[in-house]
Amino acid sequence: MTGADTAGAVDLRSDTVTRPTAGMLRAMTTAPVGDDVYVEDPTVNALEERVADLFGHEAALFVPSGTMGNQIGLRLVCEPGQEVVGDADAHVFTYELGAAAALFGLSSRTVVTGGPLSADQLIAQVRPKDDWHVTSTAAIAVENTHNRGGGLVQPLGELQALFGWTREHDVAVHLDGARIWNAHVAAGVPLATYGRLADTASVCLSKGLGAPVGSVLVADAERIAAGRLWRKRLGGGMRQAGVLAAAGLYALDHHLERLAEDHAHARLLAERLGVDPAGVPTNMVVVDDVPAAEVAAAARAQGVLVGQVSGRRIRLVTHLDVDRAGVERAAKVLSQVIGELTGR
Amino acid sequence: MTGADTAGAVDLRSDTVTRPTAGMLRAMTTAPVGDDVYVEDPTVNALEERVADLFGHEAALFVPSGTMGNQIGLRLVCEPGQEVVGDADAHVFTYELGAAAALFGLSSRTVVTGGPLSADQLIAQVRPKDDWHVTSTAAIAVENTHNRGGGLVQPLGELQALFGWTREHDVAVHLDGARIWNAHVAAGVPLATYGRLADTASVCLSKGLGAPVGSVLVADAERIAAGRLWRKRLGGGMRQAGVLAAAGLYALDHHLERLAEDHAHARLLAERLGVDPAGVPTNMVVVDDVPAAEVAAAARAQGVLVGQVSGRRIRLVTHLDVDRAGVERAAKVLSQVIGELTGR
Amino acid sequence: MTGADTAGAVDLRSDTVTRPTAGMLRAMTTAPVGDDVYVEDPTVNALEERVADLFGHEAALFVPSGTMGNQIGLRLVCEPGQEVVGDADAHVFTYELGAAAALFGLSSRTVVTGGPLSADQLIAQVRPKDDWHVTSTAAIAVENTHNRGGGLVQPLGELQALFGWTREHDVAVHLDGARIWNAHVAAGVPLATYGRLADTASVCLSKGLGAPVGSVLVADAERIAAGRLWRKRLGGGMRQAGVLAAAGLYALDHHLERLAEDHAHARLLAERLGVDPAGVPTNMVVVDDVPAAEVAAAARAQGVLVGQVSGRRIRLVTHLDVDRAGVERAAKVLSQVIGELTGR
Amino acid sequence: MTGADTAGAVDLRSDTVTRPTAGMLRAMTTAPVGDDVYVEDPTVNALEERVADLFGHEAALFVPSGTMGNQIGLRLVCEPGQEVVGDADAHVFTYELGAAAALFGLSSRTVVTGGPLSADQLIAQVRPKDDWHVTSTAAIAVENTHNRGGGLVQPLGELQALFGWTREHDVAVHLDGARIWNAHVAAGVPLATYGRLADTASVCLSKGLGAPVGSVLVADAERIAAGRLWRKRLGGGMRQAGVLAAAGLYALDHHLERLAEDHAHARLLAERLGVDPAGVPTNMVVVDDVPAAEVAAAARAQGVLVGQVSGRRIRLVTHLDVDRAGVERAAKVLSQVIGELTGR
Repeated sequence: MTGADTAGAVDLRSDTVTRPTAGMLRAMTTAPVGDDVYVEDPTVNALEERVADLFGHEAALFVPSGTMGNQIGLRLVCEPGQEVVGDADAHVFTYELGAAAALFGLSSRTVVTGGPLSADQLIAQVRPKDDWHVTSTAAIAVENTHNRGGGLVQPLGELQALFGWTREHDVAVHLDGARIWNAHVAAGVPLATYGRLADTASVCLSKGLGAPVGSVLVADAERIAAGRLWRKRLGGGMRQAGVLAAAGLYALDHHLERLAEDHAHARLLAERLGVDPAGVPTNMVVVDDVPAAEVAAAARAQGVLVGQVSGRRIRLVTHLDVDRAGVERAAKVLSQVIGELTGR
Repeated sequence: MTGADTAGAVDLRSDTVTRPTAGMLRAMTTAPVGDDVYVEDPTVNALEERVADLFGHEAALFVPSGTMGNQIGLRLVCEPGQEVVGDADAHVFTYELGAAAALFGLSSRTVVTGGPLSADQLIAQVRPKDDWHVTSTAAIAVENTHNRGGGLVQPLGELQALFGWTREHDVAVHLDGARIWNAHVAAGVPLATYGRLADTASVCLSKGLGAPVGSVLVADAERIAAGRLWRKRLGGGMRQAGVLAAAGLYALDHHLERLAEDHAHARLLAERLGVDPAGVPTNMVVVDDVPAAEVAAAARAQGVLVGQVSGRRIRLVTHLDVDRAGVERAAKVLSQVIGELTGR
Repeated sequence: MTGADTAGAVDLRSDTVTRPTAGMLRAMTTAPVGDDVYVEDPTVNALEERVADLFGHEAALFVPSGTMGNQIGLRLVCEPGQEVVGDADAHVFTYELGAAAALFGLSSRTVVTGGPLSADQLIAQVRPKDDWHVTSTAAIAVENTHNRGGGLVQPLGELQALFGWTREHDVAVHLDGARIWNAHVAAGVPLATYGRLADTASVCLSKGLGAPVGSVLVADAERIAAGRLWRKRLGGGMRQAGVLAAAGLYALDHHLERLAEDHAHARLLAERLGVDPAGVPTNMVVVDDVPAAEVAAAARAQGVLVGQVSGRRIRLVTHLDVDRAGVERAAKVLSQVIGELTGR
Repeated sequence: MTGADTAGAVDLRSDTVTRPTAGMLRAMTTAPVGDDVYVEDPTVNALEERVADLFGHEAALFVPSGTMGNQIGLRLVCEPGQEVVGDADAHVFTYELGAAAALFGLSSRTVVTGGPLSADQLIAQVRPKDDWHVTSTAAIAVENTHNRGGGLVQPLGELQALFGWTREHDVAVHLDGARIWNAHVAAGVPLATYGRLADTASVCLSKGLGAPVGSVLVADAERIAAGRLWRKRLGGGMRQAGVLAAAGLYALDHHLERLAEDHAHARLLAERLGVDPAGVPTNMVVVDDVPAAEVAAAARAQGVLVGQVSGRRIRLVTHLDVDRAGVERAAKVLSQVIGELTGR
């Protein structure tokens, strides 16, 4: 399906598909810009400073994607041959094409959890640093909200227990906070609280927040300085990136609190489809035991796009470009399609 | 110096510093966009198709920077443990922080040339593939125009000789065409002629062409498909990248032929500074035997920014944001400053 | 403890500690040798041919260690950015210092099992190759016998189910057969049966078999040819390696069937220490719920060396250099020491 | 040609082909051994201590090959993305299959010299560490004697000038001393003098010294401790490696001073073949302008083996297994063969 084909559809495949609003475009064209490779783009600098502050970190780095934010974040806390422990379903292990190993030589030690983060479960996989016969664990990766977990909000107590333990054991925590905004809005936990429970954190502007391009990595100033080199090496050094950063600043001003609306939409969708809304904490609805490919094709024919997670699972993500009417339309189409295909 | 400080200056440090024009910004805000990670951004698709055509290649890939274009290009023609031969002063070896080795395990075999490309000189460094005791050469990297060579246009005959030889010896050619546009305009050689003398080529939209962000990698369709995976792995997959691609399309329409103006400005600057214009083939003027740091500081104090290449060399680059008056002003300031500091 | 200190001890830390016998040393000094980097060492060639035959593979490669055999094996079936699935406790993930990621960029996806191999459990972690957004699984790693599993012999039916599945799904199997000899002797399964259930397999000569140095990697001829290059790159190309290969050949002739003796010794040791012999399938005895460091220190003081697996677990490994009398002595010392320290 | 075929030949292909002598074999079978992965092999420990002392370094590490010694040495002084400067013809860049890049992500910046080391020429390629846009130079690699340079002994003054400069510029020196023994004997320079002009040095026991397998890396104690981890990761951890180390100790006692004999043999060979002995500083004779493949084949038919360096160059290397009579025989065969094939 081309861009033209998807234009009129209710696109629930992901919250990455949002198009910049008129106000955002205006911000992008009026922002002052400079050469960010020379650290001279005032809008990029302003965005980095703002996001660092929001998450209670010293410094920040604007990057073209969440993948780059995560990967640089991991590299800053892990050396080649050391390992990162985390949930096997995490984005960093599942959707980043083995980048941590391929680009940086970082090993991974995954745990199949299938649910919310358990500090004990992750800690049990940490290997000692003082036994030189054993691969040493340098970092634990956390994802919040958890994408493959259906947008679940990680329990704050577990995050605190995990971070506390790591302080005593010389292990770092990296937060993949692509959708930390949703966790913040859903759970009412301040962004800085989440930020301070990680050594490095990558947060995304182009998912729920609706900016077209960009993520921000936060950490201490020394790590961010090193991260700047890695960004350049990876090819993430952009010139007048202020045009993108302006969209990010606009999104922080206008699109953060409204995520509550996406969450309400997701619960509404769940109700209409007979999914328990208690399992819909943020902006994602997971529907199981359906023929995913067929549901997706039939819905698409009626102008509703859904994500296929596996052969028997679809995922619906609400976002800025799907309003109440769109949700109602999608609910109607999907109810009918699933009913026909499953006899439910 | 912050972005604000450089705003009023005549900035000759690089052609990367240009800010988008009003027309370009208009194009960026009116272009249709989609999710390019899903290959659904119509403007990105249009740009890729157009650039592929211009260079006589099957396919193209939009990337956030020239570094990413070069690195993916090299990776597509070289496996870990094989080597890339090229000029020691090339951008890929000098300004990309060892990325080819660090990220992909590609070895490099550099030749110190200090001048235009000589096919024979590079070929002499190619190692045989049939001797398994020896590091095998997979690719030769070429840069045109050559940045550290003062914007020199590589001799077409040498490029042809090199490419011809490689066809018979199972070696690939990667073109770093960050400023291939300048070579095209200065030498009158069609872009497709240059393009067809390489297996992979990276061309930049954010230098002389004046777009804020982005480069394009061209190659055959199979390589570009593989390159798309590497781009994702590197974190170069951007969402509504059409806002950037629109600037690239606009630049191709409006800023290509005008590079002749930059070249004329560079020659003018050379004349005023007593540099032989014969050594100024495109948009760069190299001034040797000056105290670089002091010249740069003194000129900056008078609103003229120059690049320091080494302790005794400065570089002046003309571009879209420097008009005739700016050139005159810069010439006046630099003549005076160099005169005072060197007694010339 | 220096080599001299351990000389008179009953060393149950590992079966890697065996010293070459007089017969083996004689074989080492009388074997014809040549330059193996030129593939001209007749004894190395003979060993490689013999081991390839034993495991039903086309070709083999002599390497300095089991780690190198495993790592080259993995590299031959997995490309940078692809992933290897396997048990989190496997030697390749635990004791090889993240080499697959560090040296080759291979990602790993580990499953915490804590018991014998389950084909279904591993298969569930394999990611599809046709979804380019997802890290693709290239290989599954199997360890037999399983070291951290207490020398357990993997169920043949599970190995067959796993291998059968991989044939249909374009996934390779690598066998870490460091102690496959023990599995063969304990289970009565022919070596070739095990060998044919893997695409690449590394088998070790310097553990139970008692050779001082060396492992052998088996695979098809094309992979072994590629593996030879990787061995050279890793620094595993040795010159007159026939002196070592001769020990391997001698071990195959004289030390294979006698592994049954080690297994009997292990069971005996288990009985004396109150460990259920049913949990002692080969040459390892795991004793849990003991203060590992204290037991190890107290036993060492009486000339018995044991391995510490964790704070509360010790491991005893029987081998060529521990005879019946040694076993009796160790049992006596350990019974007493554990009794005193735990009150059992 | 199999090992059997080469057994009666005068083998001048390389000094790597020597077979252990009776005395050496005796030493190998009588040395006390232990598990070197546990640092418990007394003979390995003794060899490491002795070689460290010889070269004036704190510590040493026994490795299976010169390639591993060099690669670990480079890794200890260079981080991923940094670069190593050195002669393009050096063994580390030519004969180690791009290992530094492939395994460790180290970039290389080669200089085509074709002659003895010039400190200035190498220093000119060092890139500043304080410019973060530029790939930074971490180390300079030196080879002495220089293999592809025909066994040339590097000028001591240049080595001193180079090392002196690096002390002030935070750059390390790695010495590939595979044949440093030949330089020592030919130039009368103490081994420790050479050793102290490098931060890391790899010296080989299996070339001129005649041991079957092994090299030793020397450095300070902290680097050697880190190197031990890299050795394990690379698969270079061997168990009862004392059988090999014993050969190395024997070689140091019996085969070092006799290298003078090899040098005399090489000069004699040169004279007989009309090559200027002034160009034969150690144990290698390079004969140019001959049809290499044909000369090699014709000589082989008469029981003389030579190395082919390129299409028009052969190389003859004298060593422990070629006595005066062998040299005379080779000279006679080669004079005749070259005469017939070239009309000289």
